[in-house]
Amino acid sequence: MSGLIYWLDLAGVTIFAFSGVIIACQSRMDPFGMLVLGAVTGIGGGTLRDLVLGVPVFWVAAPSYLWVILATVSLSILGFHYIHRLTRTFLPVTDAFGLALFTVIGSHKALVLGHAGIVAVLMGLMTGVAGGMTRDLLAHRVPMVLRQEIYATASIAGGVVYAGLFTVGLNHVPAIGLALATTLGMRLAAIYWGLSLPT
Amino acid sequence: MSGLIYWLDLAGVTIFAFSGVIIACQSRMDPFGMLVLGAVTGIGGGTLRDLVLGVPVFWVAAPSYLWVILATVSLSILGFHYIHRLTRTFLPVTDAFGLALFTVIGSHKALVLGHAGIVAVLMGLMTGVAGGMTRDLLAHRVPMVLRQEIYATASIAGGVVYAGLFTVGLNHVPAIGLALATTLGMRLAAIYWGLSLPT
Amino acid sequence: MSGLIYWLDLAGVTIFAFSGVIIACQSRMDPFGMLVLGAVTGIGGGTLRDLVLGVPVFWVAAPSYLWVILATVSLSILGFHYIHRLTRTFLPVTDAFGLALFTVIGSHKALVLGHAGIVAVLMGLMTGVAGGMTRDLLAHRVPMVLRQEIYATASIAGGVVYAGLFTVGLNHVPAIGLALATTLGMRLAAIYWGLSLPT
Repeated sequence: MSGLIYWLDLAGVTIFAFSGVIIACQSRMDPFGMLVLGAVTGIGGGTLRDLVLGVPVFWVAAPSYLWVILATVSLSILGFHYIHRLTRTFLPVTDAFGLALFTVIGSHKALVLGHAGIVAVLMGLMTGVAGGMTRDLLAHRVPMVLRQEIYATASIAGGVVYAGLFTVGLNHVPAIGLALATTLGMRLAAIYWGLSLPT
Repeated sequence: MSGLIYWLDLAGVTIFAFSGVIIACQSRMDPFGMLVLGAVTGIGGGTLRDLVLGVPVFWVAAPSYLWVILATVSLSILGFHYIHRLTRTFLPVTDAFGLALFTVIGSHKALVLGHAGIVAVLMGLMTGVAGGMTRDLLAHRVPMVLRQEIYATASIAGGVVYAGLFTVGLNHVPAIGLALATTLGMRLAAIYWGLSLPT
Repeated sequence: MSGLIYWLDLAGVTIFAFSGVIIACQSRMDPFGMLVLGAVTGIGGGTLRDLVLGVPVFWVAAPSYLWVILATVSLSILGFHYIHRLTRTFLPVTDAFGLALFTVIGSHKALVLGHAGIVAVLMGLMTGVAGGMTRDLLAHRVPMVLRQEIYATASIAGGVVYAGLFTVGLNHVPAIGLALATTLGMRLAAIYWGLSLPT
């Protein structure tokens, strides 16, 4: 089980680091600016989660995460010219996968430590949005989470689904799958149809 | 004593969460954007305080804080049309109450843990301003604390009063009252008369 | 050894606090806004470092750091008119010294705790850039680290040099000197010749 979480976490870190690199490219940063933005986006949310939960920060305990970020950023620099040709929807779709993965992992970590459902939902939200929020703040963009599309909503829904299934004792793998599908489905639908909640 | 602190803390969280909701409304965010901004403002400062003090984060230990934020945001959404009619001074006045409450609670927590007076003053300031600062950054506003009105000044003054009275052993309830009155009085006076320090 | 680190750390805190005060002056903040920006810049990076490393936050354990910031800001207010006459390159040069000092101290702290080299490099980078990044975000400037000049690059280079020399067991004082010279030399060269990496 913790093996699956580890791999999902690595995937989330890679995806979010890549989203940071894309924005750094668009903002014409130099390679190490790209590294900073990739790292902040990839590990920002999980770092905050571990600090708040009072457990050792994941990438200090397992530096492999940092090598993955370094590799992601390096490969992105080599494939730089392709990044500039990516369509406008590529970034939000990438971000949606990262959001779904980090939401589930954040909720999972809190529940395994015995915290209440509402704490787990918030921890999922924090893990999912903090990295991307810092990325957008640093690049002088309005954070995705605060624009009108369904974003925090999708993370909270995924967290509620996961906390509910975890509490009723559903085997973890289907619970993870359903929660991932909830967040990802809502975000992709919002991107595809331009959905938003009423304001 | 810790009962009084708990209730003051709940009041501060509610007030600051509400200030986050008001700004989210003004920035035309959707209901979950309002929830994110309400939560960040309500628990941001106390989270940073607990992390720095090395104690368990308050809302992880007592999830009732999160339900209070959820209720505050939900009621605000129902009363949405009234929020739009609030006068321009309502927000800074609300924020002043939150600032006073969080300043005293932050200083109190540090002093009870045996830290030096200057640490307690800074902890009060951090608890008081970090949530609102993040709220303003996320909503692309210049943080209140960095505009020219007396803001950090009021928090530092309240913290100094509380640390002083705590050190001379004054019974806690009057010490809390005097410190609250100091911060609140200075902020409200600054808002009412448009006071500012010379630059 | 830890005595040397302590003095270098105090020097870094003072220098970064002063850089915060300069920017606060330029943004026409009041004295307590200057105090907030000075404190955030001076202790922001080290606070994040200690939280992530899971050790007591340095200025909570040793409040002398806070008195140093208070003195730096107070003296700056007295010398206010001179700050306005500083040349445009004074701020980045000051910042370069702070960056070099904090990079080495951050890497040193991580290595002494037994962490991997890549963790130490990132910790040096985080300690070096987090305070200044928050300073620039609060003052509505594009963070230096994300502009095109060699900035993160200089910190990473210094961290790599220090981690390498530490690992091969070089006596600490020359290792500190060489790492400081690496970061500082790269930054000053970048400022002097307007160097940047290709984007």
